[in-house]
Amino acid sequence: MPDNPEIIIGVDPGTNVTGYGIIIVESSSCSVLDFGCIRPPAHLKITDRYLIIYNSLEHLLDIHKPRVLAIETQFVHKNVQSAIKLGMARGVVIVAAKRRGIAVVEYSPTRAKRAVSGNGHASKIQVQGMVQKLLNLESLPEPEDAADALALALCHAHSQRFSQSLGVEI
Amino acid sequence: MPDNPEIIIGVDPGTNVTGYGIIIVESSSCSVLDFGCIRPPAHLKITDRYLIIYNSLEHLLDIHKPRVLAIETQFVHKNVQSAIKLGMARGVVIVAAKRRGIAVVEYSPTRAKRAVSGNGHASKIQVQGMVQKLLNLESLPEPEDAADALALALCHAHSQRFSQSLGVEI
Repeated sequence: MPDNPEIIIGVDPGTNVTGYGIIIVESSSCSVLDFGCIRPPAHLKITDRYLIIYNSLEHLLDIHKPRVLAIETQFVHKNVQSAIKLGMARGVVIVAAKRRGIAVVEYSPTRAKRAVSGNGHASKIQVQGMVQKLLNLESLPEPEDAADALALALCHAHSQRFSQSLGVEI
Repeated sequence: MPDNPEIIIGVDPGTNVTGYGIIIVESSSCSVLDFGCIRPPAHLKITDRYLIIYNSLEHLLDIHKPRVLAIETQFVHKNVQSAIKLGMARGVVIVAAKRRGIAVVEYSPTRAKRAVSGNGHASKIQVQGMVQKLLNLESLPEPEDAADALALALCHAHSQRFSQSLGVEI
């Protein structure tokens, strides 16, 4: 892990729910700064929902000033329509980061799960349990989207610790 | 068409080439203000390419101050990976417009082709020819991506003329 404190944000983008998790990495420990979800009201026009995702994320980036944003590699999706929607949310997140000079790194879901639980095929509940343990949280991080985002941030912290090029700056 | 001059931008987003076409609609005529393509260098990281699309589009919106941005409805795509990439470019374009309070309307490709050529299945060259004619351009608008963007802007202008709800604000 780096000598200087480093702030990392993990983001799990989605049109309905965008999970985020922000951690600070200091010498040998990681602790949580913030986590949660952006949930644009479903009755709004889809473009207004993307604007809410953008504005909310911008707010988080401006408050916490992370150096790196970690995001999941997108391999597959249910269908082309949902892939386009996911891509739109992802594009919004990437632009919010890049406009502030924040590096964007991506990790495969398997890699993120393995980094926190040792098992690339861990269940959602196992990931939540390990994130809780690694970050000394009082309860399981909820919802899953926020836990996944914290796992991505932890994955990036661990990747730096072992000086492994697990993540790809995209 | 509206009584007051109205500026409309059509955008055909893509990771490699994002076409744009900006027209001004006054009483009974449409004329072109600008058209072309944003082509982020292919050797750059994909996130830097999206940042270039965002910044370039932002520049165009700030110069021309359109009231409406017209974009193509995305129905299908070759595969899920390219759908995610297209979605990312689309998300970037939508956020650039919505952050400025610009309405985003979408038209199906068939509708845009029919609006300019009378034929929803017109070829690329037919669309270019009709866009040239409708906007009194000296030569065929090139490349196709820019012609498609101009066709989208014209489609929105025509839709207003006939007071038809052809486009859907999204």
